[in-house]
Amino acid sequence: MAVTMLALYKRPEGGDQALDELRRRYRDEHLPLMAQVPGLRQTVVEQVVQHFYGEDIVLVARMLFDDRAALDAAMTSDEMRAAGRNLREIAPGIITLIVTEEVPS
Amino acid sequence: MAVTMLALYKRPEGGDQALDELRRRYRDEHLPLMAQVPGLRQTVVEQVVQHFYGEDIVLVARMLFDDRAALDAAMTSDEMRAAGRNLREIAPGIITLIVTEEVPS
Repeated sequence: MAVTMLALYKRPEGGDQALDELRRRYRDEHLPLMAQVPGLRQTVVEQVVQHFYGEDIVLVARMLFDDRAALDAAMTSDEMRAAGRNLREIAPGIITLIVTEEVPS
Repeated sequence: MAVTMLALYKRPEGGDQALDELRRRYRDEHLPLMAQVPGLRQTVVEQVVQHFYGEDIVLVARMLFDDRAALDAAMTSDEMRAAGRNLREIAPGIITLIVTEEVPS
């Protein structure tokens, strides 16, 4: 079964300038690093255009893998380690990273 | 452009019993109410199978609408109000609700 690694970015401190920088570095640094991760099938990036309640999330990324084995292999790859280092640099303390599976309806 | 209403449920207090009840009431009460909301194109429910860091989210629901106008109409419908009342009952204080749009790659 396909699995999704879901990354949720909260609004960084530092106002619009910090948010612009997060978006820029995510796009220019992090996405190219993630694109090299073996087994990553597709990445969908979504911006938050409205907030009703709860956490102040500003950016959502969905990274799709064919199955848990592909994800597990990706997580231990050098490419993912490099992407993880970059993530801790550009988004310290504001990220939630989880793995989800679709519930059959 | 299609928009997604993204609902993120944190782990409720009360251990596994509370989590089971949240899942059951979400499926048996909330989903049928949401299914009646006008303009809702599709709902994808995902369970969290692994947690790396950040918020302790246990359930993710993606509700797809054709565009912002369809979402805006849905939000003011009686059916959505009923679903919102149910949500506040089954998941008080643990939900994040945002609207996202895909960023063209």
